[in-house]
Amino acid sequence: MKVVLLGSGNVATHLALALKAKGEDIVQVYSPNLINAGNLAEKVESAAINDLSKIDQHADLYLISVKDDAIEQVAASLKQVKGLVVHTSGTTDVKLLSAHVAHSGVFYPLQTFSKNKDVDFKNIPLCIEASDEKQLGILKQLANKLSEKVYEIDGDKRKVLHLAAVFACNFTNHLYTLANQVLSGHNLEFDIIRPLIAETADKIKADLPENVQTGPAIRHDESTIKAHLDRLKDMPELHNIYETLSNSIKLTYK
Amino acid sequence: MKVVLLGSGNVATHLALALKAKGEDIVQVYSPNLINAGNLAEKVESAAINDLSKIDQHADLYLISVKDDAIEQVAASLKQVKGLVVHTSGTTDVKLLSAHVAHSGVFYPLQTFSKNKDVDFKNIPLCIEASDEKQLGILKQLANKLSEKVYEIDGDKRKVLHLAAVFACNFTNHLYTLANQVLSGHNLEFDIIRPLIAETADKIKADLPENVQTGPAIRHDESTIKAHLDRLKDMPELHNIYETLSNSIKLTYK
Repeated sequence: MKVVLLGSGNVATHLALALKAKGEDIVQVYSPNLINAGNLAEKVESAAINDLSKIDQHADLYLISVKDDAIEQVAASLKQVKGLVVHTSGTTDVKLLSAHVAHSGVFYPLQTFSKNKDVDFKNIPLCIEASDEKQLGILKQLANKLSEKVYEIDGDKRKVLHLAAVFACNFTNHLYTLANQVLSGHNLEFDIIRPLIAETADKIKADLPENVQTGPAIRHDESTIKAHLDRLKDMPELHNIYETLSNSIKLTYK
Repeated sequence: MKVVLLGSGNVATHLALALKAKGEDIVQVYSPNLINAGNLAEKVESAAINDLSKIDQHADLYLISVKDDAIEQVAASLKQVKGLVVHTSGTTDVKLLSAHVAHSGVFYPLQTFSKNKDVDFKNIPLCIEASDEKQLGILKQLANKLSEKVYEIDGDKRKVLHLAAVFACNFTNHLYTLANQVLSGHNLEFDIIRPLIAETADKIKADLPENVQTGPAIRHDESTIKAHLDRLKDMPELHNIYETLSNSIKLTYK
């Protein structure tokens, strides 16, 4: 497949590397910043462009992996192409593409990507959607090459997934940060808490989280909760979060 | 070492199994519930008792691993013993023991334990504290047998650790539960989000969480945040938590 990649961020980079590894031909990498486009293009033996009017009109697949609010502008520049145009966003409606291009779809990897950390696409859930059965077939074939976890999911469910991901990933990581704020205020290293974080995530690999909840709130241990809140009295934001989440746990396990 | 174990819950069970595996002699397991004491005693070839007056007075170590509010009562029954008496609580002051017994200490494993999931003690941070240097030496030797991560930590820092652990473990697991509530409301399986949870925890093994935060809030992506809040309008508790944590992220990364 001849693929044009529009974007050069974390998702674009990891996708490009995975596609290249599977033998796909990344013919162009577009970014408004030519240095960014060039950095990624070099990794996948591609051409770098920063001008949407120079896009190759004869590729099979156009992968738009830019910020959500830039997707429409990029799609509008692809009106003439005959290939399949997909975006990788969890929140953006596919109609934003179909208003501009003949064949559209979504290719949403449900994962968190970091610049300097490799990921194994084999385990990444790929959520796909397309404007018609033929295009869905093309996407499915590509997705199956990359991952063992391919889901055909409509836009509404994809948005639900993205929302759940904010709780399970973004908010979770922020709780790690808040834990580190508590520790560093007392000269304790984050390292001491890393095994606990690893085990907390490990526990739900074979169980549901509601079956393995622990801690003072589920025990309705008011004296420990009060001691913790007292200790947070000079950190009003953490105090508020502690209280909000403890109350939610207490309500869940009445 | 001759060890008497007071308690039969998750922490007591995992500790007993680890001590037994290292060749320590668990002479008695106490629980007010004799069936619980018996179940654990059988696993570690010990005697089960449910009467504090029957406790062996000549053991080297008394490990109190009961609910926080039951520690004092158990300690009060050990006034005559010459061995070292320790508890395993993150929140309880060692003075609660030293008021009753000659030699006291703390042996706090910073980990979350589940009934049916094995843990490798080698990687569990063990936080120890003792009433004097000699007792500390005994505890340190025992801790080093079990784990590669032994920390001498005073009561105040231990309480800070416990508070950080609530954020990093208990609250985190509850966020997994809330994510599952979002998913199950739309007939989506928790399984689809498991790789994301695993990767979120994996990312901070070699980095600090504040360096790898992702999601709409750190991007100050107000339109996605609004769409998510709209979707949660019929789930006021999740709406509140979403708003609270998003605001905290926005404040952290201004």
